[in-house]
Amino acid sequence: MYKVLLATHGELGQGLVNTLKMFTSDIDHVHYVSLDESGVENFREKITNKMEDIYVDGEGILILADLFGGTPFNIASAQITKMYDNVKILSGVNLPMLIEACLMKDMNLDDIVDGLVEAGNISIRRFEASKCDIDEDDE
Amino acid sequence: MYKVLLATHGELGQGLVNTLKMFTSDIDHVHYVSLDESGVENFREKITNKMEDIYVDGEGILILADLFGGTPFNIASAQITKMYDNVKILSGVNLPMLIEACLMKDMNLDDIVDGLVEAGNISIRRFEASKCDIDEDDE
Repeated sequence: MYKVLLATHGELGQGLVNTLKMFTSDIDHVHYVSLDESGVENFREKITNKMEDIYVDGEGILILADLFGGTPFNIASAQITKMYDNVKILSGVNLPMLIEACLMKDMNLDDIVDGLVEAGNISIRRFEASKCDIDEDDE
Repeated sequence: MYKVLLATHGELGQGLVNTLKMFTSDIDHVHYVSLDESGVENFREKITNKMEDIYVDGEGILILADLFGGTPFNIASAQITKMYDNVKILSGVNLPMLIEACLMKDMNLDDIVDGLVEAGNISIRRFEASKCDIDEDDE
């Protein structure tokens, strides 16, 4: 069992969460913190406070960051992972990865984190007209 | 030379564009259309109108969709690719892919589209404390 914390630049986290609501209403375990024009120290405070709010002993936190080496990822990896057990961080979050992470929340975080990397990678595809049979009425 | 058109569910496209502005101000060639509660036919009209606005003969359009098999991807692949030459579609958009796509706008679309898939895939990484040397002051 785990919670999801999006750690992103700007409005991306909020946009991802709002879009996630189009696919499932079961998102009480999904949270976000954003690095905005208020700066790095403000972001550090926000992610620290959010972790205090949502962390439960014996459960996991999956941090989904937008950019490997970006400030949200760096603060999460350099600081948050040292303060808490069972925190995992993935970078390069996209919508398919977030949906999968949201749906798997009752699983053990250790067991599914590699699968989430795969879900993100598989979802990145180039459309080839001759190889796809698209039904545009699918969700 | 090409333009970028994000085709996503909900507020994700807007969130990605607003976040992109934190990395570059050169985004006049980046556009988005969103599938929202107004429905599929409204989305079809929006993407058709947007393509009419931005398409220039001899240049390319790179459509970045959020979800393979989702409605924005399906309408783009089933309809838009039949109406225009030199339209490429990638699914599973994430921020690193969008930044790379934005920066490469003066290149030939055919030459860079596989590299964008790779950029998206490489960016999806699992943080391993023992293997990373993170400087949290990086952007």
